[in-house]
Amino acid sequence: MKLATYQYDGKRNVGVVDALARTVAPFDLSVDQALRGVSALIGMDTPPATGAPVPLADVVLEAPLPRPERNIFCVGKNYFEHAHEFSRSGFDSSAAMGAVPNDPIIFSKVPDCVIGPEGDIIIDPDVSEAIDYEAELAVIIGEGGRGISKDDAMAHVWGYTIVNDITARDLQGRYSQWLIGKSQDTFCPMGPWAVTRDEIDIGDTPIRCTVNGELRQDSNTGLLIFDIPTIIATISAGVTLKPGDVIATGTPAGVGIGFQPPKYLRPGDVVEVEIEGLGTLRNACKRRSV
Amino acid sequence: MKLATYQYDGKRNVGVVDALARTVAPFDLSVDQALRGVSALIGMDTPPATGAPVPLADVVLEAPLPRPERNIFCVGKNYFEHAHEFSRSGFDSSAAMGAVPNDPIIFSKVPDCVIGPEGDIIIDPDVSEAIDYEAELAVIIGEGGRGISKDDAMAHVWGYTIVNDITARDLQGRYSQWLIGKSQDTFCPMGPWAVTRDEIDIGDTPIRCTVNGELRQDSNTGLLIFDIPTIIATISAGVTLKPGDVIATGTPAGVGIGFQPPKYLRPGDVVEVEIEGLGTLRNACKRRSV
Repeated sequence: MKLATYQYDGKRNVGVVDALARTVAPFDLSVDQALRGVSALIGMDTPPATGAPVPLADVVLEAPLPRPERNIFCVGKNYFEHAHEFSRSGFDSSAAMGAVPNDPIIFSKVPDCVIGPEGDIIIDPDVSEAIDYEAELAVIIGEGGRGISKDDAMAHVWGYTIVNDITARDLQGRYSQWLIGKSQDTFCPMGPWAVTRDEIDIGDTPIRCTVNGELRQDSNTGLLIFDIPTIIATISAGVTLKPGDVIATGTPAGVGIGFQPPKYLRPGDVVEVEIEGLGTLRNACKRRSV
Repeated sequence: MKLATYQYDGKRNVGVVDALARTVAPFDLSVDQALRGVSALIGMDTPPATGAPVPLADVVLEAPLPRPERNIFCVGKNYFEHAHEFSRSGFDSSAAMGAVPNDPIIFSKVPDCVIGPEGDIIIDPDVSEAIDYEAELAVIIGEGGRGISKDDAMAHVWGYTIVNDITARDLQGRYSQWLIGKSQDTFCPMGPWAVTRDEIDIGDTPIRCTVNGELRQDSNTGLLIFDIPTIIATISAGVTLKPGDVIATGTPAGVGIGFQPPKYLRPGDVVEVEIEGLGTLRNACKRRSV
């Protein structure tokens, strides 16, 4: 099932997107439940009844989890070619530990930087002009837990979505730990909806990113260095995972700092991230107006 | 004012601790408000009326913010002597950038690892046996904002509390980014209460940590490399701060990995962190029972 969070009729709804992605049918949820986005559905044995479908063209899609309940977990340098391009870039504070990590690099983004699949990425030239895209497959946790084994890990995955892990490269390097460079306001486009685990084979799924139509990233989620079971086992070894946790699994090669000179995002640019079966994020970059 | 979150009569309360820290008088708050801990009071022009005080000895103190609404911001290597001891330890993935940072190092801890001022720190030898203490002054944000100047920063501080930034050193080093090593379950003792900004001069306040009565850390919050206005201005430059955000400001020298051989925490140890005017955290270490 494709499950979307969206604005319609002046309020937030959660609904089912049809197979051809033309309509969305709202679930019968309370206002408080709908505020939580698709995470309101996690843990329900059967989803609530749905009302009459409306055309997707008539709604404004929001991020499936408009505001996760804690920071988003993210994995760094998790595709070989990207690990090398980033290590060479001069912004990698961990480069002394080797280009390709021996263990997953886990950091976070604040939940308040999430924007919807059609929202604007705001560029503030007073803060950074080294802003980069990162197309990523994101996992949404269903059943939480601690000490989850690799063998059991996939049973804890509720579904998937797309995240564009927007990054201010200069801040990522300057502050050594990546939180600030990764958490700038609007730096986490997410969506266009969540897709339940049964619908997609993430062991072999194309992932692409274009900027103004130019293909920049073109890879496959099967090429992750640390696969999803390894990531879940690593985090949950001592950090209890919770339902609704989001884990962005890392980006393939082709980010802006991989080019000479770097190809940073500029006001007016349009970034599209597509993962087959999950849909497309399409976000425009705008200069911050004071 | 000293403001505490505590369990009494089978439910969570928020109240005022008297000057001698002998009693606590509960505010008249709804159940939903009290669930938020002292953050329910942030933004109120005048605090609600209080009921009859009860002896502190009769309540169980919780962390003033039992579950912050997003990850806790933390500052790394923010006292000179500690920056050197950590850089020498072999666990500092940023050591190649110099022992003393040129800019604040900002990372996070998940909000679910917060425990109260009398809670147990759980040591799981299957995950880490290199567990260390870090006594820290923590700031609680009142009015949020973006682009807060250093001059305006202190007006955004609502109050202070103490955090023990418990850290699994091996995991901190292994994963390069510090989130996992810092976010293990129970790794954020906080309290014993919050103290409003007006009550304390954080430019000159002793901070100490003992383990089983042995003095390990003995410094002064006036010795921060990056002071509180600098930290707030750095984060908020592009990351909107929210009311109730917690920022742990870094730890002075004397942590376990500063010793040869390292003095890690063991089951049975009792760690006390004291900041004058803020009170004392007292947490016992227990081995995880399977």
